[in-house]
Amino acid sequence: MEKEFEKKELTKKSVNFSGWYNDVVLRADLADYAPVKGCMVFKPYGFAIWENIQKILDQKIKEAGVPNAYFPLFIPENFLKKEKEHIEGFSPELAVVTIGGGRKLKEKLVVRPTSETIMYEMFSRWIKSWRDLPFSVNQWCNVVRWEKRPRLFLRTTEFLWQEGHTVHRTQKEAEKEVKRALDVYIDLYREFFAIDGVFGEKSELEKFPGAKKTLTYEMLMPDGKALQGCTSHNLGQNFANVFNIRFQDKDGKMKIPWQTSWGFTTRSIGALIMVHGDDNGLIIPPKLAPIQIVVVPIFQGSQIDKKILKRVDDIKNILCDFKVEIDDRKEVSIGWKFNEWEIKGVPLRIEIGKKELEENKITIVRRDNWQKNLVDFQNIHNEIVAVLNSIQKDLFNKSKTFLKENIREVFTYDEFKNTAHYYKGFIKAFWCGDSRCEKNIKNETKATTRCLAGDSGRGKCIYCGRKATKKWFFAQAY
Amino acid sequence: MEKEFEKKELTKKSVNFSGWYNDVVLRADLADYAPVKGCMVFKPYGFAIWENIQKILDQKIKEAGVPNAYFPLFIPENFLKKEKEHIEGFSPELAVVTIGGGRKLKEKLVVRPTSETIMYEMFSRWIKSWRDLPFSVNQWCNVVRWEKRPRLFLRTTEFLWQEGHTVHRTQKEAEKEVKRALDVYIDLYREFFAIDGVFGEKSELEKFPGAKKTLTYEMLMPDGKALQGCTSHNLGQNFANVFNIRFQDKDGKMKIPWQTSWGFTTRSIGALIMVHGDDNGLIIPPKLAPIQIVVVPIFQGSQIDKKILKRVDDIKNILCDFKVEIDDRKEVSIGWKFNEWEIKGVPLRIEIGKKELEENKITIVRRDNWQKNLVDFQNIHNEIVAVLNSIQKDLFNKSKTFLKENIREVFTYDEFKNTAHYYKGFIKAFWCGDSRCEKNIKNETKATTRCLAGDSGRGKCIYCGRKATKKWFFAQAY
Repeated sequence: MEKEFEKKELTKKSVNFSGWYNDVVLRADLADYAPVKGCMVFKPYGFAIWENIQKILDQKIKEAGVPNAYFPLFIPENFLKKEKEHIEGFSPELAVVTIGGGRKLKEKLVVRPTSETIMYEMFSRWIKSWRDLPFSVNQWCNVVRWEKRPRLFLRTTEFLWQEGHTVHRTQKEAEKEVKRALDVYIDLYREFFAIDGVFGEKSELEKFPGAKKTLTYEMLMPDGKALQGCTSHNLGQNFANVFNIRFQDKDGKMKIPWQTSWGFTTRSIGALIMVHGDDNGLIIPPKLAPIQIVVVPIFQGSQIDKKILKRVDDIKNILCDFKVEIDDRKEVSIGWKFNEWEIKGVPLRIEIGKKELEENKITIVRRDNWQKNLVDFQNIHNEIVAVLNSIQKDLFNKSKTFLKENIREVFTYDEFKNTAHYYKGFIKAFWCGDSRCEKNIKNETKATTRCLAGDSGRGKCIYCGRKATKKWFFAQAY
Repeated sequence: MEKEFEKKELTKKSVNFSGWYNDVVLRADLADYAPVKGCMVFKPYGFAIWENIQKILDQKIKEAGVPNAYFPLFIPENFLKKEKEHIEGFSPELAVVTIGGGRKLKEKLVVRPTSETIMYEMFSRWIKSWRDLPFSVNQWCNVVRWEKRPRLFLRTTEFLWQEGHTVHRTQKEAEKEVKRALDVYIDLYREFFAIDGVFGEKSELEKFPGAKKTLTYEMLMPDGKALQGCTSHNLGQNFANVFNIRFQDKDGKMKIPWQTSWGFTTRSIGALIMVHGDDNGLIIPPKLAPIQIVVVPIFQGSQIDKKILKRVDDIKNILCDFKVEIDDRKEVSIGWKFNEWEIKGVPLRIEIGKKELEENKITIVRRDNWQKNLVDFQNIHNEIVAVLNSIQKDLFNKSKTFLKENIREVFTYDEFKNTAHYYKGFIKAFWCGDSRCEKNIKNETKATTRCLAGDSGRGKCIYCGRKATKKWFFAQAY
């Protein structure tokens, strides 16, 4: 078993990106395929990344005044049918319970693909007056959307997420909330995931089924395809209308409130893997790493040096505010250990052998650029803080550069097709907003609109040549 | 709306216990009935209690070296059928998915009622050698067991829980783990829930379907019925056998490992409500309270006193390590506020009015015994620490006394029937261990075995009169 592990080479990211992805997920012990098609198992090392994400995001959500709650997994089928676009969007992806407690159910129950409908039924019972607004709630849970082409983390029938839902007195307030929620996600991706991206409004075709407007953060993967990182929806009054949510306003009149919802999923871990990993395995940014530092004592031959072990212990104590793993296993070689922690993407390795001990130093090796340094033992803590910060920053800068270099603005459809075919990446172009052009572009180039690019002007639609005032980001997407 | 709230009296706990329970759960905003029969909605205030429990228990689980992971919600029907007792026990309670992605499924998928089967299929792939043992994993998730007589928190079709699963090289090690896990739960109930209980082994009839042995913590509710607080199972080699989990031992031979599983659910919140609450509402022990202290500024008439508000602000800063709520609402009366926070069971209230300000004091009022004290402003922090500790301790002592007073040892079946009928509570009696006696006792008195009482000797079975060496706790149970 162990020998096999050492021998088997990791698929090279640079040679076979998709093979590398599956290989690294399994070999780094992040996850495994489940016996149910389309589902996955989050193994402890992979789940620990999600727990780190949860901890950060949960705090940000609470700081914004949104408390956690929990709503049922099962949704009566007729609830989903109330909002026309919503059921049209989700119906091909539903898992349906038809038997409960040994009996055929009179009304089928859908396993939640998202919780708007079940939540808003409750909101309509709870919200009565303007004093109850803004009303907000968040839920961490599992959701199910039947997946025909599953990929670990990226597309699975069951996945984990957080879904926030808010209700407001005015449209303006709802619009502000949609942006606030997206800003939290942007910060999370940039500061913690160290992944730069573009963000903005989705097109009519790409928006959430039932929403008035959807905002997104879109990241570029190394293969030039885009990945939608999260979404924040302005639901307008669509759901409030059909779920009969009404409030008595200050003027005594009954009014329909404005709603938002926003979600962040375990899919984000897929982006983390793809963006930072290399031929040797994962590279996890220090701020999300389950293990930030691995300490490997290096003995001469098979002789265990107690002084070295004592020093390892000291290091562990000094670095008690970091997530440190001591690898003093005897049954595997040093080379094996290095290899394993590299695959697992631990951002920093500390080596401590006889030489280091004599010189009162430690050797540190960065996972991201293999930089090796001797550091004074007295200085460990400060040095480690600095190096981890530097890794986090460098990973982000690399991602930022990659993004910048892979946004290409085009003005003719020939250029567009060429870019979509040879370079991939984000293509920035004028589009008239007509869904027919968008569909044709997708059919002909595989590229879809990812989001509004933000800059406007006077231009011509890249496809039909009609007048267009807005530029959009296009890309082939995951 | 608001007027109604003030007027409507809370059902009295002392008059109608079951009515009081439902009333207080709804009025304290802990939860609501869901539109799907048997399911419930955890509202933010109720969910915050679960989050507090999770935080404490998750830390204890991690300290024991058990990492979190996540396994699929859906289990292929044939997995559940592999362990005979297991499927017999769970089959009446299953929810079954028969449609996925718009198509009828070839193999039905069961929504997990517990995860032994799906996890152990994976364990059989992962565990190869004695070096992989002990292997352990924990999961926080939702589970579904169809419930015909639902009650909020206590019995719901969907509930939330933590399930830990471990695999061991030896039987002895597994046995130790089962006890260790139970000990964690006992501590949790005693130290944090402030609820005393009895604990021990379950009978053959009452144990977990598929387990070799089940340990339980059983608490007594004010109506004299017992509530099972958690369980820890020694699964023996039953599941390892059928799921083909094998490991190569140090001697080179392939062996079957020993397994345990242990769980703690949102049902525990039901116990918390029932045990501590009173005619005025909830009483939440300080260590689990979402709000530990409510500060109510008291103004003379409608005039807002800025000095008082300033003092309230100072108090909040001094008490920043507590969960403090400031209630400075203008639209409701002081009486209303007191009433609301009493229903919600906030353990301590601070009042600050003109008198307190002038004397440089604050008034504190305990929720559990209504004790009212004037405390020097200089001394707030220390006083609050002491009072909250005292509340926590007093609630536990009250529970301890109640338990002690409601364990009755009986030696004849007439005494047994009398006690079961008139006093309820725990009945301690010799029982021969024959399931037929156990079933007859249940049919005739509604009392079931809760767990082994621990003390043994020479006696006669309370039912059949045959020789018996072990005493058991019996009670009518939730």
